[in-house]
Amino acid sequence: MTESRPLDTLNRARDKKVIVELKSGKQYVGLLKAFDIHINVVLGDAEERVDGEVKRKLGTIFVRGDTIIFISTV
Amino acid sequence: MTESRPLDTLNRARDKKVIVELKSGKQYVGLLKAFDIHINVVLGDAEERVDGEVKRKLGTIFVRGDTIIFISTV
Amino acid sequence: MTESRPLDTLNRARDKKVIVELKSGKQYVGLLKAFDIHINVVLGDAEERVDGEVKRKLGTIFVRGDTIIFISTV
Amino acid sequence: MTESRPLDTLNRARDKKVIVELKSGKQYVGLLKAFDIHINVVLGDAEERVDGEVKRKLGTIFVRGDTIIFISTV
Amino acid sequence: MTESRPLDTLNRARDKKVIVELKSGKQYVGLLKAFDIHINVVLGDAEERVDGEVKRKLGTIFVRGDTIIFISTV
Amino acid sequence: MTESRPLDTLNRARDKKVIVELKSGKQYVGLLKAFDIHINVVLGDAEERVDGEVKRKLGTIFVRGDTIIFISTV
Amino acid sequence: MTESRPLDTLNRARDKKVIVELKSGKQYVGLLKAFDIHINVVLGDAEERVDGEVKRKLGTIFVRGDTIIFISTV
Repeated sequence: MTESRPLDTLNRARDKKVIVELKSGKQYVGLLKAFDIHINVVLGDAEERVDGEVKRKLGTIFVRGDTIIFISTV
Repeated sequence: MTESRPLDTLNRARDKKVIVELKSGKQYVGLLKAFDIHINVVLGDAEERVDGEVKRKLGTIFVRGDTIIFISTV
Repeated sequence: MTESRPLDTLNRARDKKVIVELKSGKQYVGLLKAFDIHINVVLGDAEERVDGEVKRKLGTIFVRGDTIIFISTV
Repeated sequence: MTESRPLDTLNRARDKKVIVELKSGKQYVGLLKAFDIHINVVLGDAEERVDGEVKRKLGTIFVRGDTIIFISTV
Repeated sequence: MTESRPLDTLNRARDKKVIVELKSGKQYVGLLKAFDIHINVVLGDAEERVDGEVKRKLGTIFVRGDTIIFISTV
Repeated sequence: MTESRPLDTLNRARDKKVIVELKSGKQYVGLLKAFDIHINVVLGDAEERVDGEVKRKLGTIFVRGDTIIFISTV
Repeated sequence: MTESRPLDTLNRARDKKVIVELKSGKQYVGLLKAFDIHINVVLGDAEERVDGEVKRKLGTIFVRGDTIIFISTV
């Protein structure tokens, strides 16, 4: 089965653990709870990581899409 | 119950305390009074924090959405 | 009474003194005379402040919305 | 009489001397000949100023709106 | 045969190995699984490379279009 | 006669020599052959200047509008 | 014959050698195979040049429009 649209990939990652890497260099790791066409995303049980190290526990966060470089499934 | 859209998460945080982290690195902590699709937000009883330390009491502030990295419920 | 939309907050601040903080770090303090959906604002009797100190008296200024971080009522 | 929209303020400044301050820190001073909803502006008899000092006489210039921080009437 | 639209080129690269170079200077190399008009892309079996050296294995990643400089077929 | 819209000014400069100053600080001087509402412009017989000195002869160039600070007629 | 629209200039350059200069300072030289209204372009037989020196042979590349400063025909 081929994936024809990028948002299909995010849809399949719903409720799974993802890494969201930002233009700032920071990473947010959590469960993908929601996203929209602007790539605004909501992560549950989110942690902030810098250079692979957990810096903060953040609970549920809403991340604005235009700050994101990539989202990877883990 | 699943959250299908990111704005649903903000809606559920209405009148609750949130942390708004900006691209500048500063944080604004206050009660989420209002938001729109551009993620412009209004915070009540807002405080500015830098490196976790309160810098300024700001009362009610309107924050322009395109300056925001994430909004976390606390 | 709850504020459902961010622009309602700006509307209530009309003709009142506001602080407009820009991405550049500068602040413009004046009477909120007008605004639009892009958050372009017009301030009357505007002063430019840097680190809390008045740098320039500017009279009436039109500030482009995309330069703004936040608007606070004082 | 109140000003309800920001562009009304620019309209009233037509053919008057204005200061246009850019994100680059430079100022362009001249007669406001035209503007549009993107805040693209045309200045007549324009001068470029840096730190208050006239650097260049530029005649008529078209300034792209997204480079502008504010426009002040003088 | 001529290619009249840029997206035709991406369409022909579907399921082939591509290099996606970002504004950050990093490269993501993988199989082009999906793209859209914003140039959001999904890469399968993606690797991050910096200065030609593999830094991370990332599996399937969704890359936001506005971070991309170019996509090259290899 | 007044100029009511900024693009009228560019229209009047068609086929005349203009200076296009970019956010990068570089200037492109040439004949204004075409422009559109995004302020994308085409210059004929274009020269690149840095600090007033000719660096390169570029022939016909298409300049993307969002890189432009101002266009001045000379 | 006058050129009334900037895209006409790109259209005339189709299948010809062009230089695409990016905001990063890098240049991509190749045959203009395709472009669209966002100024996304496809170059065939593309080479990356930095300070006039060939750095990489890239084959066919899709360049995202918002990274481009200018396109020059050579």
